[in-house]
Parts: sequence; structure tokens; C-alpha cells
Amino acid sequence: MFYSKDRLHTFTCEVFTSCGMPLADAKQAADVLLSADLRGIDSHGVARLSGYVRLFEAGRANMNAQHKVIHETPSTATIDADSGLGLVVAPKAMDLAIEKAKNVGTGWVAIQNSNHFGIAAYHAMKALPHDMIGISMTNASPLVAPTYSKERMLGTNPICMAFPAGSHQPFIVDMATSNAANGKLEIAQRLHKEIPLGWVQTKDGDESVNANELKSGGSLLPLGGHKGYGLGAAVDILSAVLSGANYGPWVPPFVAFLNPLENLPGNGIGHFLGAMRVDAFRPADDFKKHMDQWISRFKESQRVDPNQEVLIPGEPEFRMQLIREKEGIPLNENVEKDLQELAQKLGLNL
Amino acid sequence: MFYSKDRLHTFTCEVFTSCGMPLADAKQAADVLLSADLRGIDSHGVARLSGYVRLFEAGRANMNAQHKVIHETPSTATIDADSGLGLVVAPKAMDLAIEKAKNVGTGWVAIQNSNHFGIAAYHAMKALPHDMIGISMTNASPLVAPTYSKERMLGTNPICMAFPAGSHQPFIVDMATSNAANGKLEIAQRLHKEIPLGWVQTKDGDESVNANELKSGGSLLPLGGHKGYGLGAAVDILSAVLSGANYGPWVPPFVAFLNPLENLPGNGIGHFLGAMRVDAFRPADDFKKHMDQWISRFKESQRVDPNQEVLIPGEPEFRMQLIREKEGIPLNENVEKDLQELAQKLGLNL
Repeated sequence: MFYSKDRLHTFTCEVFTSCGMPLADAKQAADVLLSADLRGIDSHGVARLSGYVRLFEAGRANMNAQHKVIHETPSTATIDADSGLGLVVAPKAMDLAIEKAKNVGTGWVAIQNSNHFGIAAYHAMKALPHDMIGISMTNASPLVAPTYSKERMLGTNPICMAFPAGSHQPFIVDMATSNAANGKLEIAQRLHKEIPLGWVQTKDGDESVNANELKSGGSLLPLGGHKGYGLGAAVDILSAVLSGANYGPWVPPFVAFLNPLENLPGNGIGHFLGAMRVDAFRPADDFKKHMDQWISRFKESQRVDPNQEVLIPGEPEFRMQLIREKEGIPLNENVEKDLQELAQKLGLNL
Repeated sequence: MFYSKDRLHTFTCEVFTSCGMPLADAKQAADVLLSADLRGIDSHGVARLSGYVRLFEAGRANMNAQHKVIHETPSTATIDADSGLGLVVAPKAMDLAIEKAKNVGTGWVAIQNSNHFGIAAYHAMKALPHDMIGISMTNASPLVAPTYSKERMLGTNPICMAFPAGSHQPFIVDMATSNAANGKLEIAQRLHKEIPLGWVQTKDGDESVNANELKSGGSLLPLGGHKGYGLGAAVDILSAVLSGANYGPWVPPFVAFLNPLENLPGNGIGHFLGAMRVDAFRPADDFKKHMDQWISRFKESQRVDPNQEVLIPGEPEFRMQLIREKEGIPLNENVEKDLQELAQKLGLNL
């Protein structure tokens, strides 16, 4: 079943406002979720809407949060998100990073006491219209085991970098630091398929191709082995040790049916955002001309299979967005049912 | 055969000064190379010394380079390295980044017209005594194929992030963005061993376990597939498109027997360095206390094999350094022979 972006956006706004969120914040949160659906990142769009509501009902998400800057220099800030949604505070924090970059060349904002911020790409891409490079990352509920460990210690901790181009679409790399994100396991579960070796391990640390392994105490494996562990750990430290949020195994779970641990070392989950003015390094037109040359040359690199073109990071998502803006957003049965139940509970129409 | 750090440092200085490098610069370059040998990164230490000399003899490395700042804001700078060695200019650029961080919270320096800068960790770690987070990356000669391509388009483009801790050693992740660095292939070649699937592909883009595949037109594969391609590409863009250096397939080869391509889009190779003051985000003592807690908790995470401890990024290198400072640096036969030939040619004693 296909839904238009506008219809889902309106519904998402209504859901958030009916939880007490101010309209402007609800629109912002809906923008972030719908950008995921438009770009084809179905796991991070309206499929998560009822999850945010459950966090609110459990008293863990503050829908009327008043974030505040608790530490600041000309190029940095630390924000306390007041237990609000990352969907709302991260775009505001990115605006602050952009403002600082306008003043001194770059701006960097660490955020504590937050909740899930949706897709990392939304926030990093906010830098692009300003001819800035955008960077965003977040920590997340522990699912990934460090190398040589069988314990879930890190989230899939994504990192995104967005670079403006000239005539080409921007270059946007947005990646989890695990080999596979949870969304890919869910797809395999629905299709009753085995998953490739290297995605998960059992609760004893053995290899597994079972897509349901996480349900029996297994863990995700870091991207490419120990390097992914190091990278995911760095995201955790920048997002949380630097901001004053919870880190490692203490990151509060996104699902409301699991309670946070006791004796937490920080507040909520953490994000880290950055904006760098291109013309703080070289004239923006030069940069964009060379980005175009970079992109063209990589597109023309010799293919392994003549029928499979070489893609630029971000390219599949831009193509998907063109299609879905025209044809609408397909919701699978479970997501549609979930949203209908949400509508009924809150007295809304989907 | 074991050599003391001091003996190799003195020899390295003499080699560089005999090529016309000022003594202070030669000491700096030797520091960077010896730090690699001490830390156990044998591929990036004195094993490369004769390679730098050959670049000088080929007229491609300027041993008396006068680097200059060509663009600047309060938190950024772009440096033209005057065709000098990255070994010399990168530490100076890192000093500038640290200076800017002292003033406005963070400092970021892009470098063009440079040559190989040694191990990334040396530069990032310069931030640590200042209670700053250090970041360093560089592009490099093309050996890695983008996803779906069989052409060498990217270097192993390493990225390093260094975080200070309190009572623990600092956390230092220093990683190539390919599955395997060239040094690992060389070890397999020496032992006449097969390499794991996923490290290289043939010139036609087929899977291979042949450690000599690069010699017949094969290519390295990016870390964990398309994510590593995106990450290595981002390092290329930050290091070179942003600084005005060469990028992608145009990066000049480190080996002097291969000539750079014609119609280059930039100057030399590029690096990107950053320093962030911890107390631009939260008090440094708080940060270091929580880094200690982070490290302790990860060390204690449940092991897969009770006899294999969980390691913190950077930990193996700190241990190796303790050993090698006491016992000396072991040079393999080929490296020793190479250095002896270099000594003879330049009229020096190893």
C-alpha cells in the first residue's frame, strides 16, 4: 500500500502533537522521519513512530523538551536535550554548528540527554545548502560485540559525512559501524532466509547464519572486524563520553519494554554533529568543481560487471527519493497495521 | 637483528640531512618513522626510508621545503607543503591545529602538495598532552577498487582518532579503510601463504586468495564492502578535494619507479588533521574519568575465549612500544640490507 509523503507527514505531526509536542517541533520530527522513508531507509521512518510514542508513554521521552546549551566556545557547544527526541534537538544543534561555522570556519556540537535522532544523513545534509560539509553520528542501544567479546557493548553507531558537489548530487556516506544493521536482519526474518556469515554471532561467540540470533542472546559483529569495533567505539566516545551521555552497555534501549540499567554514568543517549565551511579551506566553487570531477571519474571507473554501474555514496537514496516523491511511500503490512493501531488509540485518521 | 631506537634515529637523521634536509626537520621526520617501528607498525618505519630517498632522487620530494599557510579562518587552515615530506609538515600542521583549538575550541588543517606522512597515529597523538582529541587522515597511492569496480581508485586511506584517558593509556584507533593493508600482503608473500577471501580481487574483479594479486593488476577491497568504499572516499575528499591535492586515481604513487599521471587535478598528496579541546565540550577531568570507566568496562566485557582478552584500540601498540624501547627494534633481513645499501651510497654508518 502506497502513502503520499504529505499524508504520512500530517499523520506523524498529529501523533506527536497529541503527545504534547509543540507543532513546530512535531513538524521537524516528521521531516526527519519522512526523509528516511523517502530515501528508502524504511527501518528509520514512520516504522519507528509507535516506538517513539511508547518511549513517551514510559516516561522516557519528553515531548515538550527545552534543550539548553550547557558549555560553549566559538567553535563548539554541548547541549542538554532535556530528555527530548533527537529528531527535534539534532536539527537545532546542527543549526548551531552551522552558525558557528559561519563565524569561525567550523562548528561542532555534542548532545547529551537525548533519544533516537532518526537517520544520521538528515542532520549532516542540513550543512549542504550553506556550502558546508556536514558530519553527524550517534550512539545507540548496545547490540554489537567488541572483537574477542560475546557481550553487546556498542550500538550500530552510525556515522554520516555529507559533501556538496556542483552539477552532481552531493556525496553522502551514511553507514552503521556494524556489518549489518538490525533492519537487514528483520528483512531476512520476514523471508525466513539465512544471513551471510559475519553479520552475527551466537551468545557463546560462535559463527551463525541465523537471522533470529539476537533474540537468543547473540550479538551483531563490527564492520570488517576489529576496525569496525574501533570506529564504532570512537563514535560512542564522541557522542557520549564527550557530551556527558551514557556510553557502551549503559546506553538506554530504544525499545520501551526494556528498562535502562541502574547507576548510569550519563544522561540519555548522545550525538555528535559538525559543520565545516568549504570556503574555510578553499573557494567553494573550486571545491565543487573538483567534487564533480571526483564523482564523474569514479562513475567511469572500470566495472566488474558491465551491467552493474559503479555508484557514488548517496546515489541510491537520491534515486529512491525521486521515485517515492512521485509514487508515494510503500508501507509493509506490519507497519501499516502498527500505524492504524496508533491512529485508533490516539483518535486520529491515518 | 635488533637495533636500538636511538641508533636508528641517528641514522635516519643523517640520511635525511645528507639529502639536504635541515637538521630540525630531519629529527622530526626520524621521530615519525621511529614511532612506527617502536609501535610495531614495521611497514611504516625505517623500512620506508630508502623509498623517501628515491622520491627525493626522482625530484618528487623537496627536502628543504618551506610550507606555507594559503588559506585561514580562526578554526581552519590550508597548507601548501611545497612538495616536502608529510613526515615533516604534518606535525607542524598539527601544531597549528592545536594552536587554533586553544583559541576557539577546535582546529582543522588541510594539507596539499605533500608526500607520505608515515603513521597517522603519530600526528593525532600530538593532541593528547594538551587534553585534546586528535584526528588525522591521508590519501595515498591508488590500490583499492570501489564497490562494483575492478579499477584501483583509492589508497588504503587511513584514519586515526586519539582520545586522552586518565589512568589508562589513551584510546587510539588507527585504521586503513581497506580490509587489509599492503603490509599484510607482504607478510603472506614472504611466508608463501594464501590470504583470506575479501582482501583482494583479480584484475577482472574475481575473488582471490593470492597474496601476489596486486602484481598482476588486481586490487585491494574496501573495509567491509561498500561502507569501506564510502569511508575511504570521504578520507580522499577531506584530504585532497578540500586541500587542493590530487585525489582518486591521480594520487602520485609512493614508489619512485612509477611516474605520476599527466593533467593532475591538484598538487601532491593530501592530509587532513584536527584537534578538539576536550574542555571545549566538558571539563577535561570529567572526560578522562569517564574514558577510564569506558576502558575498564570494555576490558571486562565477556570474552569469547577465556584466554583471549578484549583489547582497547591502541593497546597492542603501547605494549609493543614498552618492549621495543627495552629490547630494541628487530629489522628483517631485507630491511637491514636495504638500510646498509643506503648507508654505503650516502657514505654513512648504520
